[in-house]
Amino acid sequence: MSNGNRQLKEEKVFKDPVHRYIHVRDELIWDLIGTKEVQRLRRIRQLGTTFLTFHGAEHTRFNHSLGVYEIMRRIIDVFADRPHWNDRDRLLCLAAAVLHDVGHGPFSHSFEKVFGSDHEEWTRQIVLGDTEVNEVLRRMGDHFPQEVSDVIEKTHSNKLVVSMISSQIDADRMDYLQRDAFYTGVSYGHFDMERILRVMRPTEDQAVIKYTGMHAIEDYIMSRYQMYWQVYFHPVTRSAEVILSKVLRRVQHLYESNYQFKLYPSHFTGFFDGSISLEQYLKVDESVVMFYFQMWQDEEDPILQDLCQRFMNRRLFKYVEFDQHFIMNQWNDLQELFRQADIDPDYYLVIDFSSDLPYDFYRPGEEEERVPIHLLRPDGKLRELSRESELVEAISGKKRTDQKVYFPQDLLETPGHEQEKQRIKEILLG
Amino acid sequence: MSNGNRQLKEEKVFKDPVHRYIHVRDELIWDLIGTKEVQRLRRIRQLGTTFLTFHGAEHTRFNHSLGVYEIMRRIIDVFADRPHWNDRDRLLCLAAAVLHDVGHGPFSHSFEKVFGSDHEEWTRQIVLGDTEVNEVLRRMGDHFPQEVSDVIEKTHSNKLVVSMISSQIDADRMDYLQRDAFYTGVSYGHFDMERILRVMRPTEDQAVIKYTGMHAIEDYIMSRYQMYWQVYFHPVTRSAEVILSKVLRRVQHLYESNYQFKLYPSHFTGFFDGSISLEQYLKVDESVVMFYFQMWQDEEDPILQDLCQRFMNRRLFKYVEFDQHFIMNQWNDLQELFRQADIDPDYYLVIDFSSDLPYDFYRPGEEEERVPIHLLRPDGKLRELSRESELVEAISGKKRTDQKVYFPQDLLETPGHEQEKQRIKEILLG
Amino acid sequence: MSNGNRQLKEEKVFKDPVHRYIHVRDELIWDLIGTKEVQRLRRIRQLGTTFLTFHGAEHTRFNHSLGVYEIMRRIIDVFADRPHWNDRDRLLCLAAAVLHDVGHGPFSHSFEKVFGSDHEEWTRQIVLGDTEVNEVLRRMGDHFPQEVSDVIEKTHSNKLVVSMISSQIDADRMDYLQRDAFYTGVSYGHFDMERILRVMRPTEDQAVIKYTGMHAIEDYIMSRYQMYWQVYFHPVTRSAEVILSKVLRRVQHLYESNYQFKLYPSHFTGFFDGSISLEQYLKVDESVVMFYFQMWQDEEDPILQDLCQRFMNRRLFKYVEFDQHFIMNQWNDLQELFRQADIDPDYYLVIDFSSDLPYDFYRPGEEEERVPIHLLRPDGKLRELSRESELVEAISGKKRTDQKVYFPQDLLETPGHEQEKQRIKEILLG
Amino acid sequence: MSNGNRQLKEEKVFKDPVHRYIHVRDELIWDLIGTKEVQRLRRIRQLGTTFLTFHGAEHTRFNHSLGVYEIMRRIIDVFADRPHWNDRDRLLCLAAAVLHDVGHGPFSHSFEKVFGSDHEEWTRQIVLGDTEVNEVLRRMGDHFPQEVSDVIEKTHSNKLVVSMISSQIDADRMDYLQRDAFYTGVSYGHFDMERILRVMRPTEDQAVIKYTGMHAIEDYIMSRYQMYWQVYFHPVTRSAEVILSKVLRRVQHLYESNYQFKLYPSHFTGFFDGSISLEQYLKVDESVVMFYFQMWQDEEDPILQDLCQRFMNRRLFKYVEFDQHFIMNQWNDLQELFRQADIDPDYYLVIDFSSDLPYDFYRPGEEEERVPIHLLRPDGKLRELSRESELVEAISGKKRTDQKVYFPQDLLETPGHEQEKQRIKEILLG
Repeated sequence: MSNGNRQLKEEKVFKDPVHRYIHVRDELIWDLIGTKEVQRLRRIRQLGTTFLTFHGAEHTRFNHSLGVYEIMRRIIDVFADRPHWNDRDRLLCLAAAVLHDVGHGPFSHSFEKVFGSDHEEWTRQIVLGDTEVNEVLRRMGDHFPQEVSDVIEKTHSNKLVVSMISSQIDADRMDYLQRDAFYTGVSYGHFDMERILRVMRPTEDQAVIKYTGMHAIEDYIMSRYQMYWQVYFHPVTRSAEVILSKVLRRVQHLYESNYQFKLYPSHFTGFFDGSISLEQYLKVDESVVMFYFQMWQDEEDPILQDLCQRFMNRRLFKYVEFDQHFIMNQWNDLQELFRQADIDPDYYLVIDFSSDLPYDFYRPGEEEERVPIHLLRPDGKLRELSRESELVEAISGKKRTDQKVYFPQDLLETPGHEQEKQRIKEILLG
Repeated sequence: MSNGNRQLKEEKVFKDPVHRYIHVRDELIWDLIGTKEVQRLRRIRQLGTTFLTFHGAEHTRFNHSLGVYEIMRRIIDVFADRPHWNDRDRLLCLAAAVLHDVGHGPFSHSFEKVFGSDHEEWTRQIVLGDTEVNEVLRRMGDHFPQEVSDVIEKTHSNKLVVSMISSQIDADRMDYLQRDAFYTGVSYGHFDMERILRVMRPTEDQAVIKYTGMHAIEDYIMSRYQMYWQVYFHPVTRSAEVILSKVLRRVQHLYESNYQFKLYPSHFTGFFDGSISLEQYLKVDESVVMFYFQMWQDEEDPILQDLCQRFMNRRLFKYVEFDQHFIMNQWNDLQELFRQADIDPDYYLVIDFSSDLPYDFYRPGEEEERVPIHLLRPDGKLRELSRESELVEAISGKKRTDQKVYFPQDLLETPGHEQEKQRIKEILLG
Repeated sequence: MSNGNRQLKEEKVFKDPVHRYIHVRDELIWDLIGTKEVQRLRRIRQLGTTFLTFHGAEHTRFNHSLGVYEIMRRIIDVFADRPHWNDRDRLLCLAAAVLHDVGHGPFSHSFEKVFGSDHEEWTRQIVLGDTEVNEVLRRMGDHFPQEVSDVIEKTHSNKLVVSMISSQIDADRMDYLQRDAFYTGVSYGHFDMERILRVMRPTEDQAVIKYTGMHAIEDYIMSRYQMYWQVYFHPVTRSAEVILSKVLRRVQHLYESNYQFKLYPSHFTGFFDGSISLEQYLKVDESVVMFYFQMWQDEEDPILQDLCQRFMNRRLFKYVEFDQHFIMNQWNDLQELFRQADIDPDYYLVIDFSSDLPYDFYRPGEEEERVPIHLLRPDGKLRELSRESELVEAISGKKRTDQKVYFPQDLLETPGHEQEKQRIKEILLG
Repeated sequence: MSNGNRQLKEEKVFKDPVHRYIHVRDELIWDLIGTKEVQRLRRIRQLGTTFLTFHGAEHTRFNHSLGVYEIMRRIIDVFADRPHWNDRDRLLCLAAAVLHDVGHGPFSHSFEKVFGSDHEEWTRQIVLGDTEVNEVLRRMGDHFPQEVSDVIEKTHSNKLVVSMISSQIDADRMDYLQRDAFYTGVSYGHFDMERILRVMRPTEDQAVIKYTGMHAIEDYIMSRYQMYWQVYFHPVTRSAEVILSKVLRRVQHLYESNYQFKLYPSHFTGFFDGSISLEQYLKVDESVVMFYFQMWQDEEDPILQDLCQRFMNRRLFKYVEFDQHFIMNQWNDLQELFRQADIDPDYYLVIDFSSDLPYDFYRPGEEEERVPIHLLRPDGKLRELSRESELVEAISGKKRTDQKVYFPQDLLETPGHEQEKQRIKEILLG
């Protein structure tokens, strides 16, 4: 490997409200952060539509990516000179940390659900393709981009390195929990990261935790548990996401129906048919999406217009809990009533399952699951966390599914079709 | 006055990372916050281009407006039942707090400087014009919008109420200092607001501070002092602002030169000739600006293209300090050298004065200045703060002007015109 | 009831690092705090010997008592004007909060274990006896001291009031968790008290929690869980407590054996035979105990001297875990070996069970247990917390007993009886 | 130098609420902390009588000494490998940090004022005399205790090392400001230590601050300024100190008058005539003082009894401001009136000057002053802080003297000598 990295003449520092300072000493990292693909993450919010629930949550993926980098840097400081750790992997880890989310687009969750877009695939393309990121990485040797990509995709042969960015307790999770807690302002999400870093140890296969750190880890798992229920699965956030998804579906439908747009969805067409190129993809950030939504408030199509107005002005759908039984028995009736009331149920009557959401608080051993946390006992043996901690055992693997129906209550209060609307309200609101 | 306000059935609460919780009990306030003009503030950053210096500073004016409201609410709680305070003014104060920044557009400082746009005028129009905000306010009586407008414009006859939102220590400043410190992550900007609120007292003319609170006020003034130099006047932020302003000027120039845009600046033309309507103005948020900048990276015009790429990818101008003497003697030479090197000095050689910036840390008694802070002595007399506090006296009125030249250092390293570029570097970098 | 309370002319404020400010408006409360019995709590640490483990934990019961008062005051603010709350009980609650720990003596846990002293009995005597506290309370009527005493003893007929100071989520626990976390510096012990207070509601029988507050309560229960294992049951603290208890036992033994003390234990003799009067009891604070221990470092008796030196200079016993099986089989042998090695096992070989410790994290429904937490559902029904929360259910009732043997390892390294000492080490250290 | 230090097998960690963790890797340091002379600091409060003003301020000098050690450790981490820093001085710095306050006795300020005791002299004796501290230090070579003593006394030839523990911005001050702010709960005292450490640089003569750190230093100076006026000079603390001093004076007077004590002041007699030995000195901690005060509440002498009761039960003297003029004219009259009213003015009428207090916020260049702060400019030149910072210049050297008269207002309300008492009140209270 040619050494394409130099130390910066003077350490660069970012002020960060979560980690206080983010320290960069390697030119490679500094230049990666300066690439336009990474700078683009400034225009993609970390938590999608959550800012409509928690107004503080306006932070971006750029913000988070720097945080993951900083935690990774601190983990490596702890690992230095310990068995199983090879300092040649340092830049690989740091670069993977900076880039792990680089393929995310605007409102990723919705775009992926509606269009089948895959941010991991885009990450790979950005790392391996004709990009500024790739150009910077290649300074470390031609194979380096592939290595970084393998680490992010969890296929790299060095399992220890992979675990540092993708496991149940990795730099990624430790940053986002703290960062999301900080920006939303909730009181959860705090744990003693300083202590966790001090008890983290490299092994051949993964980073593990010294047994004496078990309480700190329990606290971290509890933070995750609380963050998921308080922030990530928040029903208002999901309501905004439902509307966003429906806008995207409506636009695709209109496009496919040859509707005459006032503002043609040129940034979206590649998503509709899957033909989108990397260059095009990189141009679609949240400003772009918001611009279209802003403009589409004036489209002729009443559904597109209405949904965009709802999203821009935060006039969200109401939600109610429901159970399986309900769906079986009343769903068809309800859809029919919506139709009779002139409210298109394809856009205005939506079921949403929390279990669809891409978060897990801790499920050891499930298929395709991330590496579970192992405790390192004084005798050198490893034990999976939930076997040692009653607390973690108690909550792991329990899938608390939460099912909600979302619908526009305001439309049920407008004149016309009062009888059907009354019936709908009886069913949904009891 | 018809009482157009009702108490909400249940108090609504926003989670706020700065004030922990923001409490809303009045339907009027709840509905104001829900108007599309206020929701639009979610798409306008509180600190303009500062996010390019402090990546945490991605917070919006919506965020800040809620904070000012909350502080106002707490001040009113302290004032309740005290002489000079009339509880009928409560909603007037709260509404003014929510709306005090509602006229701001995207990157206000730059837009105002380049186009002479005036956010105060827009605020007036939003409050008094045909808007959702006006509709909500009018529930309190036809004169209510005018009253709110007068408070925000500092022309209302109730000087006490005006001082609560516009003085040297008002709800606005107390929120933004804490909020901007929180999001940037700097260690300054903290002061003991709880104590300040406890020692604030209404008088006929203004809110004043009990003498025993002088130390807390000193601390607040010091926070301002530090925030201005550390955050608000940060040269990197100003560098981004310089570029932004130059983009706007270039677009106007191209427009006036009948340049054939790939993406026509339809959202901007009203700014160019001052013909912009309220409806048009309200559509221009930061997403819109960012969308254009995104697209203009591919314009033919090399200056527009370059400046937009710089702004989007954070390739900012370098800056150096200089003194008056320098300008007198070398400025013309320097401009000429730029021209000879084929770098248009109108866009690439910029002087910027901190004293242009719309902040003051504390200047009692200047013309058109905000009401200075008065201390209420035990004997009932008022004393202006800087006469009692050595600390404040020491820093008040001192205008530390900071003058910098901004220019693209990278362009001086490119091939061609090496001699002129060398000479430029000698002048600017010594 | 004669109204013996007046409002203070001006509110008094204590600066408190945990609650920021403690507000006193009632002369009755102000005067209670000023009594010598309450001031005496300044000389009794909140956490006994914990300062030898966590050097920050030097805070006193005075400190905590003010904190409980402040939380109680805030709960009452939330309850004001709600059904089931009667504002006449306000001062009763506040006085009980100030006084709930007033009977504690120095190192209560050890004194109670060794001498059978009972701080609750002393609290009753202080409240009802010839004290400054009683004199202040009687201003509210002759029955008022008895009412306060009944509230503290949980026998008062007003169950709501009792629950505010003694239940699974009362002002006492909410203060000590936060305060002990603050002073020890551990990262646990934090929870969103502001939110808990907002969702607390009075009912006829007890204070309950609105259902929407369940997550905040879970977080509070987790904090307790972590604090018990990280702080309250810390083995080093218990080691210091073991030594302290052994000093007390040795002094009593020497006293009963007519040992000629250089410094006669005049402050202790009343404890030995249970004859101690209230006046005498109130003179024994931690300064007094420390004074004797200081002096007894120079006593002739080698055990008393040694144990006092250990306590003063923090030369604590070592500890090892052991199991029941071990005790049955080896305990007698071990005691015999200690004797043979000339180390008195009555003082230097100690078993300690965490289950002896006066803490519970959450055990609903046990005998003599505090009122469990009830959630108030939207339909008005109450549900016990552990039936609604999987998290709480998972940890409630699980008694994690922790048994340790404490002994002075250093004495096993001294010359003489090497063979026995070697054998002891084999048994204890494996 | 023989290397008497070994690395601990495993790093030891103290949990600290101010610095989060205190890390010890050197056996020398670990053993120093374990000496009885250092452990004794657990029984001496950091802020003397301040706990009677700020109830949170119960922290000890032990607590602070660990903090200074930790900051020193971090400074050394920053200095490592830089010019002018020699890593052989590491343990010298760390040992001096642990020991810098080891000579302090109980309520040092009062004892020093009344008895002329000198904690610096005691520190020297503890470091150089027959103590556990000395024994541990001598492991590093026979000269090592003398070196440590020289550093603490500021006479060591290595000025850089001296400046790290004794200058205007040293480990000592940085710890106490933060720690005292933390425990009192005031909002001042915070500054960005992490940043200050990052910009600190060793030079031949002293530790200096990179120019870019000027704002952080300004903030630190402001913190000191606020802490002095808000905490260190607090009049209630001084009132308690006045009483404490008067108790000491009274005891000495009684002793010299052959008064028959119920509890003879055996721990104090060495102070009276200056004959106290090191061994005796080390036995007098705050528990001992409090024990005597406790007992002396029952002495026959009415002044001793009264003053002790005041101190124990916090019945402090009232204070009023006065000016020089007042003293000249009325002091004699006032003393006479006190005598006529049967209140001994020697004990009950006290003037106190803040300028007597051992604190300076920043006075560069005064005689015997600590090394002022120097900024290191980019050109390598040093500039004294107050010449660069308007803020610091504004407050430096300004001696805000604050003079108060302390007296027992309650005694002026008792029956007898009403006329004289009335006259006294007129003079003092106006």
